[in-house]
Amino acid sequence: MERNGTQSPDCPGSFPYVFERFPLVSLSTDGENETSPQKNKTIPTGCMRSTVTFYLCYLLCLALGLACVVCVCLWNSRWRGGFAWDGSRLQFNWHPVLMVTGLLVLYGYGAVVYRVPLTWGQNKLPWKLLHAALMLGSLIMSILGLCAVFDFHNTNNTPNLYSLHSWIGITAIILFTLQWGVGFAGFLLPCSPVLLRKLLKPIHVWLGGSILLLTTAACISGINEKLFFVLKGNVTYSSIPAEGVLGNSLGALVVAFGLVVLKILSTIQWQRPDSRPGDIAYTPLQDEND
Amino acid sequence: MERNGTQSPDCPGSFPYVFERFPLVSLSTDGENETSPQKNKTIPTGCMRSTVTFYLCYLLCLALGLACVVCVCLWNSRWRGGFAWDGSRLQFNWHPVLMVTGLLVLYGYGAVVYRVPLTWGQNKLPWKLLHAALMLGSLIMSILGLCAVFDFHNTNNTPNLYSLHSWIGITAIILFTLQWGVGFAGFLLPCSPVLLRKLLKPIHVWLGGSILLLTTAACISGINEKLFFVLKGNVTYSSIPAEGVLGNSLGALVVAFGLVVLKILSTIQWQRPDSRPGDIAYTPLQDEND
Repeated sequence: MERNGTQSPDCPGSFPYVFERFPLVSLSTDGENETSPQKNKTIPTGCMRSTVTFYLCYLLCLALGLACVVCVCLWNSRWRGGFAWDGSRLQFNWHPVLMVTGLLVLYGYGAVVYRVPLTWGQNKLPWKLLHAALMLGSLIMSILGLCAVFDFHNTNNTPNLYSLHSWIGITAIILFTLQWGVGFAGFLLPCSPVLLRKLLKPIHVWLGGSILLLTTAACISGINEKLFFVLKGNVTYSSIPAEGVLGNSLGALVVAFGLVVLKILSTIQWQRPDSRPGDIAYTPLQDEND
Repeated sequence: MERNGTQSPDCPGSFPYVFERFPLVSLSTDGENETSPQKNKTIPTGCMRSTVTFYLCYLLCLALGLACVVCVCLWNSRWRGGFAWDGSRLQFNWHPVLMVTGLLVLYGYGAVVYRVPLTWGQNKLPWKLLHAALMLGSLIMSILGLCAVFDFHNTNNTPNLYSLHSWIGITAIILFTLQWGVGFAGFLLPCSPVLLRKLLKPIHVWLGGSILLLTTAACISGINEKLFFVLKGNVTYSSIPAEGVLGNSLGALVVAFGLVVLKILSTIQWQRPDSRPGDIAYTPLQDEND
């Protein structure tokens, strides 16, 4: 495997630095004993702090995602009567569950795969496949979530795609479908030219973050709208019942998850050394997948 | 004035590069004729493209912000009956106008002040004051927007702060107030130590972007909720009336504005040369304001 560490060895995130000196990364490419006290003494405190902060953020991301999934399942199973696929309101309940789990959480988990330093020194292809697979899973769940709400609306003669929530949500899913298709063709097909990949990469990264922002806004407006719809009569939303607190907490978790994922994606020090802005040496296809 | 160009002269965004060679920046600090054809020939195409792209994005940001303000004013003046400050629903109409204009648009304009290359070579203090003043204007408008809705709710015996929209919105305003206070004390007061500024800066930048994401989510959920509230009876939201299209378009503009501002803030090449990550030389107080 050819090393593509194009940055200075003194740079905390550079390939040789991370893989030859950093104790949190077990992979050694030159067979030296990385645990020797002499070498460990050379690790700057800032590097250790950056990697520890990354893993704390990553754990927070995983925990917040899990909390979102638990919260949305609990809400729809316990307070909204559970699930079915029969055109009833129980079918609608799949919509928030699939959207929060698929379009938000699985998408966020898939987006940060490349940021985990443990994956940097290894063959990139399996991580690309994992990224693509998580995103495909997210896309399939999102489309199922769309089917759930469209089928429910059609059965009950309710128009589709009239609210702002639906406009934002459908835009996110259309962009996500395009993103996945173009990403697959551009970054996974062996016939895709290097120049195309170079042009696509910044657009792919920017669009990825933008889809997450759209999804977050769609989730918040959807949860807010649903709580106004269902909390009427004796138990109103304005009396802040337990279901209202749960729904609002789900919304707060969704926003916190979105912020943590965007923080991980936007921190330059946590990007793959071969993917940082300003890195003029682009890795060609055969090296990139090595 | 001491120059604080700490990056390589070959780097497109470095201080000497931008101010001594770039024709879009008129300021000359050494009295040389910047328009000499000899010098212009040395400008790499990538630098020109980056700066032109910035100004296109900046114009788009200004235009989208203006469109948001026009749209929210039109909606509330033409479809919602106009404005008053008497506890009636006409008082409520100030809420979306002040929030979109203050908390979103003015905030976004204030956030990107430092990204304009024309400001880089000049004394930083006036731009700091402009940034702080725009943010203070935004904060005052946001607080007035809160007063409008609280007063309307109190007059009509409606509880405050029960919906997810209000939880997200009030969190944004609390964080914004803290951000402004800490930013003023940390970056504008002459007695604030350099070490404190160094520690505060990344937090200030990250929190600034996070507040924008919270505001975007609050605006979308608020517009969506309002349209469901008012479009009932003969003209329902689901029939997609003109007001529904206007409200949804306002929401789309809000999201587009948020995305463009976040794009401007997150593009490393558009950050002030002395503020980019990895720049180890921190500018002390006296130089920073020079």
